[in-house]
Amino acid sequence: MSDKQVTLYELKERMATFVRERDWQQFHSPKNLSMSIAIEAAELMEHFQWLTVEQSQQLEPKALQEIGEELADIVLYSLSLANYLQIDLAETIHAKMDKNERKYPKEKVRGKAHKYTYYQQQEEGA
Amino acid sequence: MSDKQVTLYELKERMATFVRERDWQQFHSPKNLSMSIAIEAAELMEHFQWLTVEQSQQLEPKALQEIGEELADIVLYSLSLANYLQIDLAETIHAKMDKNERKYPKEKVRGKAHKYTYYQQQEEGA
Amino acid sequence: MSDKQVTLYELKERMATFVRERDWQQFHSPKNLSMSIAIEAAELMEHFQWLTVEQSQQLEPKALQEIGEELADIVLYSLSLANYLQIDLAETIHAKMDKNERKYPKEKVRGKAHKYTYYQQQEEGA
Amino acid sequence: MSDKQVTLYELKERMATFVRERDWQQFHSPKNLSMSIAIEAAELMEHFQWLTVEQSQQLEPKALQEIGEELADIVLYSLSLANYLQIDLAETIHAKMDKNERKYPKEKVRGKAHKYTYYQQQEEGA
Repeated sequence: MSDKQVTLYELKERMATFVRERDWQQFHSPKNLSMSIAIEAAELMEHFQWLTVEQSQQLEPKALQEIGEELADIVLYSLSLANYLQIDLAETIHAKMDKNERKYPKEKVRGKAHKYTYYQQQEEGA
Repeated sequence: MSDKQVTLYELKERMATFVRERDWQQFHSPKNLSMSIAIEAAELMEHFQWLTVEQSQQLEPKALQEIGEELADIVLYSLSLANYLQIDLAETIHAKMDKNERKYPKEKVRGKAHKYTYYQQQEEGA
Repeated sequence: MSDKQVTLYELKERMATFVRERDWQQFHSPKNLSMSIAIEAAELMEHFQWLTVEQSQQLEPKALQEIGEELADIVLYSLSLANYLQIDLAETIHAKMDKNERKYPKEKVRGKAHKYTYYQQQEEGA
Repeated sequence: MSDKQVTLYELKERMATFVRERDWQQFHSPKNLSMSIAIEAAELMEHFQWLTVEQSQQLEPKALQEIGEELADIVLYSLSLANYLQIDLAETIHAKMDKNERKYPKEKVRGKAHKYTYYQQQEEGA
């Protein structure tokens, strides 16, 4: 039942069954699910709101446990949206990674934040 | 390369390599990643902002393609945070689903939105 | 103490005093405040997450009260960020409205959602 | 036209006219507006996503200008929601500040982040 054994399909199926058994498809419209993901993402952020970047790297077990649950919620709603829209998530993620690898060539962006790179390119281009 | 074949571990590994090869671990602190997830979630919402719930259920291929990419970004940043915090996501998700199934017994909540249920329970309890 | 009497300056001053008396300037950095605004915005959304657009137009007094408080939090953190960055918010808002009025001429966009207009323009332009 | 002169009422009126002249009340339902606020909040966060807390305190004029516009958008959508729900925002904000002042007595919380205080209280209470 660990990351090495579990496929996205199995998780999608478990979530689909959960929703179907509660007759919650009516609430799980794409619009509503996009709100749910954003709400869970904010609950995740709440844990880091007043921490420095450094403090956010040294979390206590209790915080880590809660953060794991928020992360699970985000992924679960994402899976539910993928179910609704019949999106193959693994395929979509691999395609996005192909795109990211082309967009951010490792030799060009190494050690630079996306944004920093972006601004620099603008300056160079200007 | 579909949901039926791909494990969370494979996706986590691909993302970890991408981040490591760009020396982006320094930016991918938990605090920053929580912001990234929320930002991508908002970009997903942007597609549904002015649609009715019904319209959000009938999307055109172009919108569907873009929505898939936003969804991929959300999951990718979630995987990166799981990498950083050494969270086994499959395990965490299954544990969260166990909890959800206990919290929302299917015979009690069928056809009722979480929130609606919540308010109703309050009234009954009051 | 109503909208007709209160200036943005008065509200900014009240918030600035509150933050200063608690020595919270150290936490109210722009980065942290941007997270706070997003978190409060998500708490606002939570009230509407499972409602239809129509249901969100007929709120009960209790919900309305809570929604007002979330809205207050969003504006308060916005005022705190304006304080920190020494932004004159009234001036900035009026300038943004000037821009919006030029960007969305009333005779062209009447009755059309921003997004819809956007897509239509793309099609016409293509 | 500065913060010292402009009341919330004037800004609400300007936004209300803008919406009415475009017949956009139909889109500006509370549900949709709550999404709009969250989306603009995320666009604000995007400016700070990869910055350290310290870097977010030293912004360049161009970034500052863009940040001001995002902030204006957040407040404008908040005003539009207040219009829709007939909320007196000044009154609501003052009431929320009264509440905050009682909740966070300055002598008790000075120099401590809300969250830190929260956890500490839990420990003390346990």
